[in-house]
Amino acid sequence: MQSHPEVAVLRYGHRPGRDDRMTTHVGLTARALGADRVLFPDNATQAAETVRDITGRFGGPFDVERTTELNATIEDWPGVVVHLTMYGEQLQSVDDEIRTTHREEPVLVVVGGEKVPGDVYEAADWNVGVTNQPHSEVAGLAVFLDRLFDGRELEQGYENAERRVIPEELGKHVVDVEDGDHAEGAAAGDGD
Amino acid sequence: MQSHPEVAVLRYGHRPGRDDRMTTHVGLTARALGADRVLFPDNATQAAETVRDITGRFGGPFDVERTTELNATIEDWPGVVVHLTMYGEQLQSVDDEIRTTHREEPVLVVVGGEKVPGDVYEAADWNVGVTNQPHSEVAGLAVFLDRLFDGRELEQGYENAERRVIPEELGKHVVDVEDGDHAEGAAAGDGD
Repeated sequence: MQSHPEVAVLRYGHRPGRDDRMTTHVGLTARALGADRVLFPDNATQAAETVRDITGRFGGPFDVERTTELNATIEDWPGVVVHLTMYGEQLQSVDDEIRTTHREEPVLVVVGGEKVPGDVYEAADWNVGVTNQPHSEVAGLAVFLDRLFDGRELEQGYENAERRVIPEELGKHVVDVEDGDHAEGAAAGDGD
Repeated sequence: MQSHPEVAVLRYGHRPGRDDRMTTHVGLTARALGADRVLFPDNATQAAETVRDITGRFGGPFDVERTTELNATIEDWPGVVVHLTMYGEQLQSVDDEIRTTHREEPVLVVVGGEKVPGDVYEAADWNVGVTNQPHSEVAGLAVFLDRLFDGRELEQGYENAERRVIPEELGKHVVDVEDGDHAEGAAAGDGD
């Protein structure tokens, strides 16, 4: 979110095909839950395209980048690095400290894909377990960001959106945003 | 978690192959973040097997079921039904009320897969958006459960585990649990 030092999410590792959907979900979760930017491995072309497409339609600002320099990004990060891993310290024992640090410093959140080398554990300022159970890197990222921003990310607005969903008790209400005006539009299909 | 009325997660819709990983992550997230049970569509055999395998190794109690009766499960649920959808009411405007209701009543959390029919929206007591942005059903489930349990799920213990991860600032510390004793064991490989 724009009012803070930057929060970027780095997806460490990607297997084209097999990981396309998970990497896409990492990117979309980063965007929806308040991060400013996601960095994907260079081979995650399809996931990058999907996240850019969603950002174009539903608004930003949110940057999607691909890099061949995952390790250098971590080592040269001008702030603190949080690596999410089931082997790390308990989230509930470090989240206050990380939240306080983020008032002053940009945060890079590293989300593992396949194998994460020991170098990443050592380069991180915090290795954090969102539980010490095996589950989902997307779930871990989501809970981490919700706590980092203390729920404020749920209130964030988006600029330059083509469409916007209006919260409803029942049904689907999607508004087309045109030149600053709001024109009513039907939701496309019955899909979720 | 065992101290409350039950929380079950229902995965609505599954395409074998394409959805195996997402459905597995829904199940593992449900288990790690405090739900008592996950219900999968009958065709999600591989995801069910994976979640059962993890539960066998890392402990429970946590039940994995498959059903051909998704709609009947929702309609006949003896408590309240929360359907997570980007079109729903804002989480932050309903989470207090749902948390209060859960003190007395079991909660069924419905997580969409492919198309979710209008019947599900109508059968739900709440349609809830974890943001009104497109992102990930796994991320939405994770934030919802963390707020439903108010973070207490991060402290939950597991019974009948074969192994347990000990939180560490650096590195991987996995303990084999044998007959109630704790024997030190090396983590398998460098994987995450």
